[in-house]
Amino acid sequence: MTGPSRLVGAPTSAVGARSEFVHAERTPTGSVTGSSLTPLQDLAGTITPSDLHFERHHAGVPLIDPAKHTLLVHGLVERPMVFSMDEIKRFPQATRVHFIECSGNGELAWRGGLFGVPDPGLTPQLVAGLSGNSEWTGVPLRMLFDEVGIKRGAAWFLAEGGDACRLARSIPIAKAFDDAMVVWAQNGEPIRPEQGFPLRLLLPGWEGSTSVKWLRRLELGTQPWMTRWETATYTDPLPNGTARQFAFEMDARSIITSPAHPETIDRGWQRVCGLAWSGRGKIARVEVSTDAGLTWQDATLDEPVRSKAHTRFTHMWNWNGAEAILLSRAHDETGYVQPTRAELIRARGIGTLYHWNPIYGWKVAANGRVFFHGAT
Amino acid sequence: MTGPSRLVGAPTSAVGARSEFVHAERTPTGSVTGSSLTPLQDLAGTITPSDLHFERHHAGVPLIDPAKHTLLVHGLVERPMVFSMDEIKRFPQATRVHFIECSGNGELAWRGGLFGVPDPGLTPQLVAGLSGNSEWTGVPLRMLFDEVGIKRGAAWFLAEGGDACRLARSIPIAKAFDDAMVVWAQNGEPIRPEQGFPLRLLLPGWEGSTSVKWLRRLELGTQPWMTRWETATYTDPLPNGTARQFAFEMDARSIITSPAHPETIDRGWQRVCGLAWSGRGKIARVEVSTDAGLTWQDATLDEPVRSKAHTRFTHMWNWNGAEAILLSRAHDETGYVQPTRAELIRARGIGTLYHWNPIYGWKVAANGRVFFHGAT
Repeated sequence: MTGPSRLVGAPTSAVGARSEFVHAERTPTGSVTGSSLTPLQDLAGTITPSDLHFERHHAGVPLIDPAKHTLLVHGLVERPMVFSMDEIKRFPQATRVHFIECSGNGELAWRGGLFGVPDPGLTPQLVAGLSGNSEWTGVPLRMLFDEVGIKRGAAWFLAEGGDACRLARSIPIAKAFDDAMVVWAQNGEPIRPEQGFPLRLLLPGWEGSTSVKWLRRLELGTQPWMTRWETATYTDPLPNGTARQFAFEMDARSIITSPAHPETIDRGWQRVCGLAWSGRGKIARVEVSTDAGLTWQDATLDEPVRSKAHTRFTHMWNWNGAEAILLSRAHDETGYVQPTRAELIRARGIGTLYHWNPIYGWKVAANGRVFFHGAT
Repeated sequence: MTGPSRLVGAPTSAVGARSEFVHAERTPTGSVTGSSLTPLQDLAGTITPSDLHFERHHAGVPLIDPAKHTLLVHGLVERPMVFSMDEIKRFPQATRVHFIECSGNGELAWRGGLFGVPDPGLTPQLVAGLSGNSEWTGVPLRMLFDEVGIKRGAAWFLAEGGDACRLARSIPIAKAFDDAMVVWAQNGEPIRPEQGFPLRLLLPGWEGSTSVKWLRRLELGTQPWMTRWETATYTDPLPNGTARQFAFEMDARSIITSPAHPETIDRGWQRVCGLAWSGRGKIARVEVSTDAGLTWQDATLDEPVRSKAHTRFTHMWNWNGAEAILLSRAHDETGYVQPTRAELIRARGIGTLYHWNPIYGWKVAANGRVFFHGAT
């Protein structure tokens, strides 16, 4: 008889590796302006492993020596200052669990459904994988602002990254006095390069591009800078000819991660589970429908439910073998309810690919195979 | 001018890697019976990255195919059952953050200090690195026991691992109805091989060897099995000739992780920070002394303070350049206080290397160099 319990195993190691039976990967696309998506269907609990957290960048991932990296804080301040990484780490620190989601999350599923039949082969990763959830450690931004002394009249600040495109976003100063942080650690260790090593801004609940990576400069001023990152992009044209600009908050979203494509299920009890989150606070409730929206049941939420963080929901479903459409709908603590496709189009038209968070569905065929059903 | 912001960066990737400027590693020792220690001084926040979480095993790390792995639950039960991984994952799940600590943690520092001068070159990793803190996901053990139906008279259960030494520990059944879990995920993904892939027991707050890895069998019975793992080892001889057996709970411990060897510090404000935890519940208070225990000040605890989990503490200290001894002392919510070396020896003698959690010190020399000072 052989088997693992009959063989001496592998030795200890300096840095561990995944089991060769585990196959979780992002979906890299693009060598300069690119993105890669979190494999949501492979996650358990609430944390996204740092090396599987989605990427989105516009000039590749810079290689930055933390010993040389500095953060300049200037503009409408009493004492412009340049902070080294060591100096930033001496401030009082805080650790918080939050999601970061790209405002383009769901674009692939949306585009496909808008101009044709939704691609039945999409997976949770491809439908909503531009989101990740981490424990972040850093200094509350207000402490840096207290150190430099904000001058009267300062109402916005600009955050600029140190990558080759120097992505820069204008942020209302109130966010600094709410929950903004400047963070250097993710899930217990230094931030990974593609997440902004050695330093990034973290604006909990706001669209991912505002949590500027490779953060090197904060400038205080009286009004937004109207950078190309908030005019040519990350702004939403509306049907009436105006545009929705500074759509900072990420609306509540949910996604069933199992059963989902490419799973095949058997008759009987199924654990329908997934993730929900809201940029406005805590998830209050997630409903699941197994009959295309005719009836809805409250799913169970895993405790603790954290504010502006991935929350896992579960609903037990006894599948009788008939074709079924599975849907999930998130409610947050402000009363916001995840909208239908029709509601979203009515409010915003089809001129933008950002901030699309409709209720998505999975179709279970009579043979148990599961396919993406698009937005409902 | 060159620099990161003048160069196109690296492309997106399927699985990320650490920055080449980050050098955190465990300390592998031994190819069969071995251990490797968590680099505590390199951690931030509360999570221990899975690939840096300490290891301890007695027959190497087995390679187990999850599709073939099963858990047998038998003995004093109504319905002996064998569960596949898929079947276990269909039970209601829970996600909790808890530390796991080997009962031998601190052995190196203790041994050195007991029989000679403590090694001044020890780092936080070498002093107390047999502990790690993770988000664990699995099924509460009581649900598996409800499924098989426990017979009257069952008071203990045996947990057996699937590695070549078939490590097995006897556990009072009350722990199953308190907070024991059978877990398959750590920090959002399948447990790493050296942490028990695909399945381990998790007994929050109890000595690490009881959280049996590669779990393959649970047997219910009326009394402990007296395996070699709880007789020849993991039992503590006492000075009076008796032995302390089944010392399950890990006592409260704290360790300053910075400043610590091999750091060199400058005069002025220092962030004295570290980690504390208790197997009995929440850390209630951590005191820091910068004068070898003459006076103590309460450190600040990072929120949220979780039960049976690593808790980060911080104390700001203005170093005047004189030689100093830094100490930390943890209190938990049950009133337990981390003891001195003398108190521990008085209670337990010197016949065992397990469950040593004395107050440890770091000596700051006048030139700013920091050395391990041993237990006080």
